[in-house]
Amino acid sequence: MKVITSRNNERIKDVVRLRDRKARTESGLFFIEGIHLAEEYIRHCGFPLEVYFTEKAYNSYRDFFASLPEDILCSVSDSVFEKISTESSPQGVICVCKACSFPQSLPEKGSFLFLESVRDTGNLGTIIRTAVSLGVEGIVLSPDCADIYNPKTLRASMGAVFAADIFMPAEFSAAVTSAKKYGKVYATALYDNSLELGKFKVCKNDSFIIGNEGQGITEEIRSLADNTVIIPMTGKTESLNAAAAAAIIIWEMTRSYNGR
Amino acid sequence: MKVITSRNNERIKDVVRLRDRKARTESGLFFIEGIHLAEEYIRHCGFPLEVYFTEKAYNSYRDFFASLPEDILCSVSDSVFEKISTESSPQGVICVCKACSFPQSLPEKGSFLFLESVRDTGNLGTIIRTAVSLGVEGIVLSPDCADIYNPKTLRASMGAVFAADIFMPAEFSAAVTSAKKYGKVYATALYDNSLELGKFKVCKNDSFIIGNEGQGITEEIRSLADNTVIIPMTGKTESLNAAAAAAIIIWEMTRSYNGR
Repeated sequence: MKVITSRNNERIKDVVRLRDRKARTESGLFFIEGIHLAEEYIRHCGFPLEVYFTEKAYNSYRDFFASLPEDILCSVSDSVFEKISTESSPQGVICVCKACSFPQSLPEKGSFLFLESVRDTGNLGTIIRTAVSLGVEGIVLSPDCADIYNPKTLRASMGAVFAADIFMPAEFSAAVTSAKKYGKVYATALYDNSLELGKFKVCKNDSFIIGNEGQGITEEIRSLADNTVIIPMTGKTESLNAAAAAAIIIWEMTRSYNGR
Repeated sequence: MKVITSRNNERIKDVVRLRDRKARTESGLFFIEGIHLAEEYIRHCGFPLEVYFTEKAYNSYRDFFASLPEDILCSVSDSVFEKISTESSPQGVICVCKACSFPQSLPEKGSFLFLESVRDTGNLGTIIRTAVSLGVEGIVLSPDCADIYNPKTLRASMGAVFAADIFMPAEFSAAVTSAKKYGKVYATALYDNSLELGKFKVCKNDSFIIGNEGQGITEEIRSLADNTVIIPMTGKTESLNAAAAAAIIIWEMTRSYNGR
């Protein structure tokens, strides 16, 4: 087990750099905080590369640490830990992990949730959590979505990112087009003269597109969809919360293949 | 139009006190921040009692201020405004409003969303926003829910609180019992051997109970329900986000009377 007590240690500086998307992309690494995310990561992806922890955390989670290989453990002082942490009340555990390379092309069949320009890390994480919870077959991200490996995305996803089938095609529009071979593609919209969700039958290989929180789906992508869809509302409010709207869409989308 | 430039002004001190639930309850007043909430309040409840604003806000929203009676306007210095505001990037508009007295007893028929001990202000506001958006007939709060008039609840509700039919019975269990006269009452649960949402027919006057984020519904209230219900999930995640789970429940609940 290694021990680091200097805030100027080069390894610690490298971990702190992983707060930035650019450093994550260049190194192919990211970090996660807290016991729950660590356990979810290990459950789905195996051991992390390095685990940094405080003495207090070591004493609080003895079983967890006992289950890890000795050579990935690195005990750090509270002051060093604070330098890395992005949490307001940290649990004292940070794992450095290897990023996945997500496939570019979609499988030959299936129902997909396309996320175009979902820029809010909390929304992206929550949408992925809902999609994995309800059994979406594949989640397809446009290149300008928030970063999957941003600490806030990971936190909001509660680790669902590690269990998700995520695709990151370089050409988002081509991926949308390819999904049309297997079923209909619905673009969620905010305007009338769209189909009303819940009033038409969603079939097993149909896909849905969710757009940016403020701007919605771009005209380019919308024009590729077979139909636009709205969540029918009373008009007493202007809109739904983004995570709530996505949950309803995902629920209706997975209804078709979950036999509800 | 009044002008206040002293942070020690007694009126300003009274407004600042409204940050606390106790002061809100005692005075029967609360405050809202931002143009959107102000517009929603006016749309549903009429003019507020007082409007505090900065010069910058006055110049940015001239039409809004022109539509208000002169005698409720109170121009304040930036320093005074900062003292009242709870926002990180305030728009410079705060309205002091009279709290509603929500009815204790439920109407003689209808479908209700019961919220037991929903303590997180953000969740409470988001759930109310979703319920109003989708057309829930009545929202029934247990006395230990977060405060409707907490600035964070109001912000998350995006003003839906003002459009909602809210009930606050002193005896929450008696209200649940009374709803059973008109239809079934379903308690949302996290354990198996419950009915699966989406696999049974929800009828027009059926009601649902959503419990505390961590503890769920108390045994006392659960025992009053006709059935427990779960949202069927893949098991790849531990749970859904509270606002996402509530959105799915509300969507299925309103499906019955919205003809979806």
